[in-house]
Amino acid sequence: MYLGSWLNRLGRGLSRPIGKTKQPIWGSLSRSLTLSSQRVPEFSSFVARTNTCGELRSSHLGQEVTLCGWIQYRRQNTFLVLRDCHGLVQILIPQDESAASVRRTLCEAPVESVVRVSGTVIARPLGQENPKMPTGEIEIKAKTAELLNACKKLPFEIKDFVKKTEALRLQYRYLDLRSSQMQHNLRLRSQMVMKMREYLCTLHGFVDIETPTLFKRTPGGAKEFLVPSREPGRFYSLPQSPQQFKQLLMVGGLDRYFQVARCYRDEGSRPDRQPEFTQIDIEMSFVDQTGIQHLVEGLLHYSWPEDKDPLVAPFPSMTFAEALATYGTDKPDTRFGMKKYLRKEDIEFIRKFAAHHFSQEVLPIFLNARKNWSSPFAKFITEEERLELTRLMEIQEDDMVLLTAGQHEKACSLLGKLRLECADLLETRGLALRDPALFSFLWVLDFPLFLAKEESPTELESAHHPFTAPHPGDIHLLYTEPEKVRGQHYDLVLNGNEIGGGSIRIHDAQLQRYILETLLKEDVKLLSHLLQALDYGAPPHGGIALGLDRLVCLVTGAPSIRDVIAFPKSYRGHDLMSNAPDTVSPEDLKPYHIHVSWPTDSEERASATPSKYLSS
Amino acid sequence: MYLGSWLNRLGRGLSRPIGKTKQPIWGSLSRSLTLSSQRVPEFSSFVARTNTCGELRSSHLGQEVTLCGWIQYRRQNTFLVLRDCHGLVQILIPQDESAASVRRTLCEAPVESVVRVSGTVIARPLGQENPKMPTGEIEIKAKTAELLNACKKLPFEIKDFVKKTEALRLQYRYLDLRSSQMQHNLRLRSQMVMKMREYLCTLHGFVDIETPTLFKRTPGGAKEFLVPSREPGRFYSLPQSPQQFKQLLMVGGLDRYFQVARCYRDEGSRPDRQPEFTQIDIEMSFVDQTGIQHLVEGLLHYSWPEDKDPLVAPFPSMTFAEALATYGTDKPDTRFGMKKYLRKEDIEFIRKFAAHHFSQEVLPIFLNARKNWSSPFAKFITEEERLELTRLMEIQEDDMVLLTAGQHEKACSLLGKLRLECADLLETRGLALRDPALFSFLWVLDFPLFLAKEESPTELESAHHPFTAPHPGDIHLLYTEPEKVRGQHYDLVLNGNEIGGGSIRIHDAQLQRYILETLLKEDVKLLSHLLQALDYGAPPHGGIALGLDRLVCLVTGAPSIRDVIAFPKSYRGHDLMSNAPDTVSPEDLKPYHIHVSWPTDSEERASATPSKYLSS
Repeated sequence: MYLGSWLNRLGRGLSRPIGKTKQPIWGSLSRSLTLSSQRVPEFSSFVARTNTCGELRSSHLGQEVTLCGWIQYRRQNTFLVLRDCHGLVQILIPQDESAASVRRTLCEAPVESVVRVSGTVIARPLGQENPKMPTGEIEIKAKTAELLNACKKLPFEIKDFVKKTEALRLQYRYLDLRSSQMQHNLRLRSQMVMKMREYLCTLHGFVDIETPTLFKRTPGGAKEFLVPSREPGRFYSLPQSPQQFKQLLMVGGLDRYFQVARCYRDEGSRPDRQPEFTQIDIEMSFVDQTGIQHLVEGLLHYSWPEDKDPLVAPFPSMTFAEALATYGTDKPDTRFGMKKYLRKEDIEFIRKFAAHHFSQEVLPIFLNARKNWSSPFAKFITEEERLELTRLMEIQEDDMVLLTAGQHEKACSLLGKLRLECADLLETRGLALRDPALFSFLWVLDFPLFLAKEESPTELESAHHPFTAPHPGDIHLLYTEPEKVRGQHYDLVLNGNEIGGGSIRIHDAQLQRYILETLLKEDVKLLSHLLQALDYGAPPHGGIALGLDRLVCLVTGAPSIRDVIAFPKSYRGHDLMSNAPDTVSPEDLKPYHIHVSWPTDSEERASATPSKYLSS
Repeated sequence: MYLGSWLNRLGRGLSRPIGKTKQPIWGSLSRSLTLSSQRVPEFSSFVARTNTCGELRSSHLGQEVTLCGWIQYRRQNTFLVLRDCHGLVQILIPQDESAASVRRTLCEAPVESVVRVSGTVIARPLGQENPKMPTGEIEIKAKTAELLNACKKLPFEIKDFVKKTEALRLQYRYLDLRSSQMQHNLRLRSQMVMKMREYLCTLHGFVDIETPTLFKRTPGGAKEFLVPSREPGRFYSLPQSPQQFKQLLMVGGLDRYFQVARCYRDEGSRPDRQPEFTQIDIEMSFVDQTGIQHLVEGLLHYSWPEDKDPLVAPFPSMTFAEALATYGTDKPDTRFGMKKYLRKEDIEFIRKFAAHHFSQEVLPIFLNARKNWSSPFAKFITEEERLELTRLMEIQEDDMVLLTAGQHEKACSLLGKLRLECADLLETRGLALRDPALFSFLWVLDFPLFLAKEESPTELESAHHPFTAPHPGDIHLLYTEPEKVRGQHYDLVLNGNEIGGGSIRIHDAQLQRYILETLLKEDVKLLSHLLQALDYGAPPHGGIALGLDRLVCLVTGAPSIRDVIAFPKSYRGHDLMSNAPDTVSPEDLKPYHIHVSWPTDSEERASATPSKYLSS
């Protein structure tokens, strides 16, 4: 049956890989919604329909129903497939003379037109059931039909297997949202966030508090968008996170705060970043690092989609030093170990990659069956050294080892990148190293509190932010060797992506002032309100922020965070649908006492911005 | 007992009126949290304490507990009252020599210092129980105590009965948040929003979708903040509501959308407005006006605080014309009828008020026992007219009637204002006309779709916004007498405040284009994406937005919306804690290709902005 095979294609033929998709997404959606909320939402309350298209089953046989939806497909003026947000159902178009107007309505309306259909749920004729379609046992014998809105010729077909460029998808986002994948992603996101709120608010007494987004520029806040006010020369700033507010809420005795917080970061053009993004923002009083870790493990366990394997807590953890030494990164993908299957000819590729991207030489070592090294490096070391290295690195027969020399972090970092390159290489050969159905969470702990500034290595800067409390065991080092102090910072990593980070904060005003003023040479005037707050009975406190867009992206297996955001910006920060940002008349700028400094021709050519902005 | 009377004062002596507060807010809070979420949140999970201060009762006798909190008060170095976000508990400071260090810690720490105390829950000696204090039957015999953070001398005492100016409260907001009233307001707000989410998401299948706040300027969006981008001359705009996005989501087949949406409105200085505010934003497909009304009635009923009388649905409704004619406003306070109790000498005040604010004359009519009018107006009309008016206005003995003449809306509006003035007048005489415990919801319907522009009365403008669908019965008038068309717009009014508004939207592209282009003379280019979307199978849809800040303000009886927002701006749009908006260096403006146009001296003097902005 044609419809069956079409639905098959719908299930399989999504234009992009989506990880573990066991069944067509239409139809499975309402079921999973039911499970996770422990009661069936009334999807048809307050509206004209009696049911959703996707929910009808044999148990509804004989019922008179009214459905509203989009014409997905029509065959031989006999069958019509009606779609709503919960799935597809087949409508039987009446053929008898008395129903001529119903027939006309249903046969003449273009695909993607909106119709209301009333009729009876009947069984499909024997042998014509479609087991691939959740509503495949039944069809609707139409009695009345009304065209609610006709659809003009579309820029692309609303079928998941029809490929379209991302620019086209973003330009017609309201059409792209009709795809099963976008529907699934946005609903799953909503569901996960609701479960997180239940966990935090209902189970653990957190208070959902909204903090301002029109705020003061933070010291060094070069990535903060500015918002001109009506007072000449005065600007608000859109904060990158509610960091100051969450700490002040703890000083204010709110005890347990959370917010699904809109944050802003102006980084110009970055491929997989958005100028506005969302974080699950959490702060608690009287908590330590372990407390936050347990909280977050519980949070993710509770909100994890029911159709995936439940998460196992506690998550493994490793120190930053260990992660760097073992995986060459502070966000290791721990789904795979990466030990084997490379060919000799791959070595050339790897060496070139290292030379090109890191100006660094890499030497391979192959261990053969007689435990001998086959390596250009072998001749430089003694037999004893060779055996010791073999033991230390736990090299086994047929292993290939990549060796490099250099400054520790740089060398480790290169090897970490090579590990991922090798994984890519092996996956192109069909070896599934990184199972998309596997979710490997990892805590990375004991980061250094400070880093040497790249441009001026004798000066220090915060590894994360200046409010992170030092490790209790390292406090004495603050006054002698601050670069050796570890911070009470923790990162949460999922499959090689940093999806969260937080810390226990400094609650002692004197310590905070010492770090800001003496160690970091910051202008404390800009933070005087925070320093003062710490003096007035600030409780010990700590928190975390989880990147919601990235998390949902990984959970859904979406190729980009843009696929889990309803109206994302392009990688250049544009809204392709409405053409934002847009030009503004000088008249509109006047109340804000600003005017545009148009770049000179030479400046313009030097910048990466294309010149077409002048034309609109 | 001193403590008892102090707590009494705490309960009664809140610095501002708060409507119906039957008991001290501390202590009742955790109980109401429990009730409304139908399970007790674990307020002490993941942290060092075993219990919260406010939850301890006789049932805990003999338990070893660890508490964390602020020192609220200390008496004779014997008792200490410890406070956390859930209430107060009395700590018995040990007097024996062996506990000298515990005694020292607890006796030396200044008030509002943060301490951790461990000890045993014991019964208070007979006769020393405090029935006014929820934990008044017990006290904690301290065994260990640790000073977590000492508090410096505060700018004001954290006691509700200590009055402070609002400027001081906002400058030290983190201290002001410790007040029982702010704790109560923010927690109640969080709770109500959580219940709303449950209702929408879990019970009725709404999808929580985040929409962008960096968007394109909307036509006529004079109140939109601008955000300069890194592309010269191009600006984002912070939208006043997600109006366009919510409609596009319906076109995208999302069916039921909601968002607790941050919105922005730049109105300069307005006493009880905030530059950023929050609305419960809702949109549904295939819905009519009644559907939205039922949804909202259910939503408010479900999320209404348990300690208040349950709401009775459906709410009463009246047309705009009726509201104007009867109450002289489109947002009538229907808690009172306002018929009596004015004195003859009040008339002078009323007439002056009318003359001063509306340049309008008002004539009083008093009906005496013989149904005769006592009025300067009486001599201008015949006996017959007088009787007819008495009948029409349902005037009864001892009534006072205020009469005015003029253009209908202006005259009604004056009388509506006078009604509220008279209510104020009567309340200063001790007559409680507007019961703060009474919540009178009212739907106002059938607004005109268009209004004549004030500055150019032959042109039309939208009464609400150009996407509102006309009343089905009035569509034919669109082409002949558009000013007579009613819109499918509805306002929700609570106790004289507009707390929500919405409409059924236009889903027909041709009609939308006609209204925008022909009737409103708008530049449709700026809305081309929306018009195009309507052409591609837009379902019939409608929605509403509830002003969350105002709603919570009314529910809590707070004197200002600033009392239900954690970090509000002052009425001039300033953050008094951090001094935002602030100056920005020319260097920081450079990436955005803007510079400041400093006003000349004369411009500056002409503006309302004080000159001190130049000094910081």
